[in-house]
Amino acid sequence: MLTALGRQLRVDSVRAADFAGLGPPASSLSAADLMAVLLAGHLRYDFDASQNPANDHLIFSKGHASPLLYAMYVAAGAIASEELRWFRASGSRLQGHPTPALPWVDVATGSLGQGLGIGAGIALAGARLDRRDFRVWVLCGDGELAEGSMWEAFEHAGHERLRNLTAIVDVNRLGQRGPTRLGWDTAAYARRISAFGWHTVEIDGHDVDQIDAAYAEAAASERPTAVLARTRKGKGLRAVEDVGDAGSGGAVLPDAEAAIAELGGRSAIRVEVAAPEYEAPAVPDLRSLRIPWYERGRLVSTRTAFGQALAAMGHARSDVVVIDPDASDATLTSYFAEEHPERFFECHAAEQQMAATAVGFSVRGFLTFAATPAAFWTRAYDVVRMASIGGVGLCLVGSHAGVSTGADGPSQMGLEDIAAMRALWRSIVLYPCDANQAAHLTAAMTEHSGIRYLRTTCEDTPVLYGPEETFPVGGSKVLRESDADDVTIVAAGITVHEALRAADVLADDGVSVRVVDLYSVKPVDTATLRRAAADTGRVVIVEDHWPQGGVGDAVLDALTGSTVMPSVLKLGVLALPGSATPVEQLYHAGIDADSVAEAVREIMAG
Amino acid sequence: MLTALGRQLRVDSVRAADFAGLGPPASSLSAADLMAVLLAGHLRYDFDASQNPANDHLIFSKGHASPLLYAMYVAAGAIASEELRWFRASGSRLQGHPTPALPWVDVATGSLGQGLGIGAGIALAGARLDRRDFRVWVLCGDGELAEGSMWEAFEHAGHERLRNLTAIVDVNRLGQRGPTRLGWDTAAYARRISAFGWHTVEIDGHDVDQIDAAYAEAAASERPTAVLARTRKGKGLRAVEDVGDAGSGGAVLPDAEAAIAELGGRSAIRVEVAAPEYEAPAVPDLRSLRIPWYERGRLVSTRTAFGQALAAMGHARSDVVVIDPDASDATLTSYFAEEHPERFFECHAAEQQMAATAVGFSVRGFLTFAATPAAFWTRAYDVVRMASIGGVGLCLVGSHAGVSTGADGPSQMGLEDIAAMRALWRSIVLYPCDANQAAHLTAAMTEHSGIRYLRTTCEDTPVLYGPEETFPVGGSKVLRESDADDVTIVAAGITVHEALRAADVLADDGVSVRVVDLYSVKPVDTATLRRAAADTGRVVIVEDHWPQGGVGDAVLDALTGSTVMPSVLKLGVLALPGSATPVEQLYHAGIDADSVAEAVREIMAG
Repeated sequence: MLTALGRQLRVDSVRAADFAGLGPPASSLSAADLMAVLLAGHLRYDFDASQNPANDHLIFSKGHASPLLYAMYVAAGAIASEELRWFRASGSRLQGHPTPALPWVDVATGSLGQGLGIGAGIALAGARLDRRDFRVWVLCGDGELAEGSMWEAFEHAGHERLRNLTAIVDVNRLGQRGPTRLGWDTAAYARRISAFGWHTVEIDGHDVDQIDAAYAEAAASERPTAVLARTRKGKGLRAVEDVGDAGSGGAVLPDAEAAIAELGGRSAIRVEVAAPEYEAPAVPDLRSLRIPWYERGRLVSTRTAFGQALAAMGHARSDVVVIDPDASDATLTSYFAEEHPERFFECHAAEQQMAATAVGFSVRGFLTFAATPAAFWTRAYDVVRMASIGGVGLCLVGSHAGVSTGADGPSQMGLEDIAAMRALWRSIVLYPCDANQAAHLTAAMTEHSGIRYLRTTCEDTPVLYGPEETFPVGGSKVLRESDADDVTIVAAGITVHEALRAADVLADDGVSVRVVDLYSVKPVDTATLRRAAADTGRVVIVEDHWPQGGVGDAVLDALTGSTVMPSVLKLGVLALPGSATPVEQLYHAGIDADSVAEAVREIMAG
Repeated sequence: MLTALGRQLRVDSVRAADFAGLGPPASSLSAADLMAVLLAGHLRYDFDASQNPANDHLIFSKGHASPLLYAMYVAAGAIASEELRWFRASGSRLQGHPTPALPWVDVATGSLGQGLGIGAGIALAGARLDRRDFRVWVLCGDGELAEGSMWEAFEHAGHERLRNLTAIVDVNRLGQRGPTRLGWDTAAYARRISAFGWHTVEIDGHDVDQIDAAYAEAAASERPTAVLARTRKGKGLRAVEDVGDAGSGGAVLPDAEAAIAELGGRSAIRVEVAAPEYEAPAVPDLRSLRIPWYERGRLVSTRTAFGQALAAMGHARSDVVVIDPDASDATLTSYFAEEHPERFFECHAAEQQMAATAVGFSVRGFLTFAATPAAFWTRAYDVVRMASIGGVGLCLVGSHAGVSTGADGPSQMGLEDIAAMRALWRSIVLYPCDANQAAHLTAAMTEHSGIRYLRTTCEDTPVLYGPEETFPVGGSKVLRESDADDVTIVAAGITVHEALRAADVLADDGVSVRVVDLYSVKPVDTATLRRAAADTGRVVIVEDHWPQGGVGDAVLDALTGSTVMPSVLKLGVLALPGSATPVEQLYHAGIDADSVAEAVREIMAG
C-alpha cells in the first residue's frame, strides 16, 4: 500500500503541475515515497482540527515541492482531488509555494533553508514550554543544505537535544541548475550533521521499509534525527530521471497523460491519518500589567524602558517568550532573562535562527519577542519577510538605532532598519523617544498582529512624558504647538530631543515652531501631519536614519494627499559616520538641534 | 621575542581602549599571542605598499578586537604608537571596528561571521584567477561560529580546497553575554569544521611554539586550515580572566596603569614584517564592448538582456567575474557562464556566501557581478550593508521583481528590494523597462563605484527603445510629452508598459498624459520630475513594489523641493499577492493599465 500511495502522490503531483501548465515536478517526485510513509504511518495529525495543539507539525522547507504537499492533502481527504485543478491559479489557496492560506500550513516557505530553523523553534516550544507530545517533521532539499541558516538550525536543535524534531532530507543530488556539491554522498552529510549533535540515518529514499524504519528510529532517538534519503529527482519517469546533470534542459519530457501512465495511472487511495486526541489549547495566565514608569526629566534610555517593560509583560502574561542572539546585554532583554529565565531562549550569535525560533514559538501560540541591535536585523531580513508573508505574529526590537550609537562605528548602527521594516506587508514600525513612551509601546505591540518593530536608542535621554500619557499605534504627539506656528518639525526617537532644543532656541528668536513626535512611523498619523502642514505651511523632518525609506519618506507619503502641500526639508544621515561620541555624531550627520534650527531658518527664508 | 611581542600587543590594546575610556579589551587580549606569531613570522605584507597584489590579506572577522589590530600596526611601524590615542575618536581612522579608512584593511567588519566568507572569496580569486601566491588569514571569534554565514564559508572553501586560506579561531569560550555552547571543546569544533573538508589544528593559543607550528602546518596543507586555539579572554589580567562565565559584570577591573603593569609594562618592539616582492597589478584586457541590442517591438525580458549584455561585457573586459547562488537559470547569468566558465563562480544556494565571495573578488580588483532573484537579496542584506560601509564596489542584480513574477507566489517576488537597496550609503538603484535599456544599464553599472543594484523582470516585455538611445545613471526618459499634458505618470520597469497603455486609452478620451520612465531610481532625475510636476500639476506614480521605500518615495523626495507641489497619487502593491498570472497579478495589485488610467481620472477629478 505504501508503494502504491507513493505512486499516487507522484501522479497527483504531476496532475497538479499539468493543470498549472507545468511539466512533471521532478522535486516532488523524488520525495513522494518519503511522504507516503510519513502520512500513512507516522504523522499524527487531525486534518479536521488543524488547531489541535497535539497535532504534529509538517513543514515543507523545500516549498517548491508544493504539488507533493497538496497531493498528500488529497490522500488525507483534506481537500478534494478536483481542487488540484486550481494549483497556482488566481485566488486559489494552492499557491506555487505553500502558505498559511491553507489551515494545515504553519508558515510560508519558498525561500530555501528556513523550514528547519522554524521547525527547531516549534520543537523547542514543545519540549520546553508546551510540554506536549507532538513531533515536528521537516522535509528539506539537499540543495538547501548550502544555506547557512540550515546549519544555525542544526546547531541549535543539536545543542538543545530536540528529540521531537526530524529532518527528512530528500537527497536527489540536483539543485536548481545542476548537481549539488555532495551528490548522493549521504555519508558526507551524515558526518557534518552528526558533528552538530544530531542522530543520522542514511537510507534509500524509495524503499518504503527503510523509510519506515528510519522514522521509527527517529522517534526513538534521544536526539534530533536527520533522515538522509538518497532519491532520484523525477523518480518514476525515465526521461526526467535520465536528465541527470543537465537539469531539465534539452530532454523531451512526457506529457501529463504519458507521465501518469508511466507512473502507474490514477488511483484514489485514502489514508486515515492517525489523529491525536484533541487537547485544549493552553490558556495563558493573565494578570494586570504594571508598566514601569519613569519620572520626567530622568535620563533613561528607551532600550532600558523596553527591557523593563518586557520583564513586566512577562509577569502579566505567561505566554510571553523572548528570543535572544547573544545580545541581551545590548538590547536589554536581560531584564526579562533575569525574571523569567524559563521563557528566555538563547540562540547565540545566529540572527537567522533567532528569527526562525521566534516564528516557531509564534506558531505554537506564544507571544514572541526577539531583539537584536537594529543593524543586525539585516541579517535576518529574509526570515522576517517570509514571516510577514505567512502572517506570523512577531514583536521585534532593534536597539542601537542610528548614528547616536556613537563610537562603535557604522557597522553597529541601524541606519536602514526603518526602510527595511516599513517595506513588509502590514508591518507596524514604532520609534519611541522617551522611556515612558518606550514602555507603553512595548505593551502596545502585543495588542496587534503581524510584524511589529520597535526601534530603541542606546543613549540615555530625558523622560518627556508623564505617566498619564497614552501612545496608540498610528498616533503621534504634538509637543509644542501654538496658533501662530511658523514651521512644523517632525521628529522621532532621539531627534525629538534635538527638535525640542531647536524649538527653544528658535523661540528665543521669535520663531514659533510646532514639534510633532512621530513615534508611530507605520501606520503614520496622517491627520496630525496634514493639519500641521496646513497650519504652518512648512515642515522640517529630522531622523537618525539614511534619508531613504525612513521617517522622512513616511511623512512625505502622508502629506501626499494634502490639499495644499507645504514646503518640506528632510534631514537625515547623509555621510558615512565613523567613530565619535553620540553628540558629535548627531552634529556630523546634521541632525542635531543646531542643524534643525538652521533648517527651520532656511525653510522660512524660502 | 614572540612572547614579548604578544605582551606588547596586549599592552597597546589596553592603552588604546583606555584612551577611548574603555576598560581592558578582553577579546583583544585573548588573541594577542596568535597575532604576534602571525605578524612576526608568517604574514607577508608590505605596509608601505598596501596596493601590492602580492601582499597577504589579514581580516579581523572578529572586528571588535580592533585594538589588537591597531596594536599590530604599531608593532609593524605602520602607525605611530601615539596614534592609538585617537582610538574611537571623532575623525580618527582608528574606528571602533576596522574599516578601509585604513589602507591595510580590506573590508569593514563588526557584523559577526562575515570575514571568513570574504576571506574565502579573496582566496578563491587568488587560486583561480589571480594566480598569485598570497595567503589569506582570517581571525575569527568562537562566538561567531554560531553564524550560519561561517558555515557557508567553511562549505565553500572546503569544497574549493582553498589551501591559501587559514582561519585562526580564538576560542576564548565566551560570547558577548556568557559562555559559548562549546566552551573550550576545540575537538567539537574540529569535528564540525573537518567534516566540511578543512584541515584542523588544535593548539594552546598562548603557546607561541604551538602557534608557530600550526601556521606552518596550515601553509603546508593541501586544504584550508582552521587553527583552533584555546585562549583566555582577558589573558594576562587575572581579574579579567577570572570573570569567567559572568561576563564583565561585577568584577573590579584594574585601571589602565595597573593593567599595563600586570601585563609586563610598555615596550616598543618593532617587527620587520616580511614584505613580498612588489608585483605589478594585473591590467585587465580591454576590448570594445558590443552591447547586444534588440529590435523595437520584440518581446524580450530585461533579465535576458541583462544576461546577454553581461556575457558581452565578459568579452570586453577580462576582469569581469560573476558569482551565482544556484540561480543562473533564473537570473540569466547563465549566458555569461556559458561563454566565460572560468570567470563564473558557483556558490550554490548560499546567498550570504555569494555576496561575501563577490566582496572578496572586488577586494582583489575584479569587476564583480552577483545576481539572485530580488527577493533573496534580503538573505544577503547584511553582507551588502557591510560592503557599502566598507566602500566595496559591487554590481548586484535582482531578477523576478514584483508581483509580475506571477504564479510562484509571494515568497519568490522581490517587493522590498528597492527599499532595502536605496537605504544603503551611496547606492545606485536601476530598474530597466526594456531590453535595450537593461543592456545599456548593465554596462553603465560598471562605470560607477559602490553598491550598484539592477532590478530585472521575469516576464517578456516589448522593446521600446532604439539602439541610438542612451541611459545615463541619474537620468530618465520622457516617453510621452506634449505642451498640454494634464497629468504625469511616473513608472519604472514593468509598469512603464502599463503606463503607456493607460496613456493610449486616455488619449482616446482626450486626456493628454506625460509618461516618465524612471529607470534610475537612485540617483533620481529630480529636474525632469520637477519640470513634469510643474507642467502638469498632477503626478501619478505606479510601481511593482510595496508602497514603502520604492519608486514612489523616491519621486516624492525629488518633488519635495519643488516650488509648487503637484497633486500626487501613488500606486503600489497594497495587498498580499497569491498565485496568479503576471497579468492577473498586475490587475489585483492595482498597478495595471486600467488602474493607472483610473488613477489619472481620479486625480483630474481632484
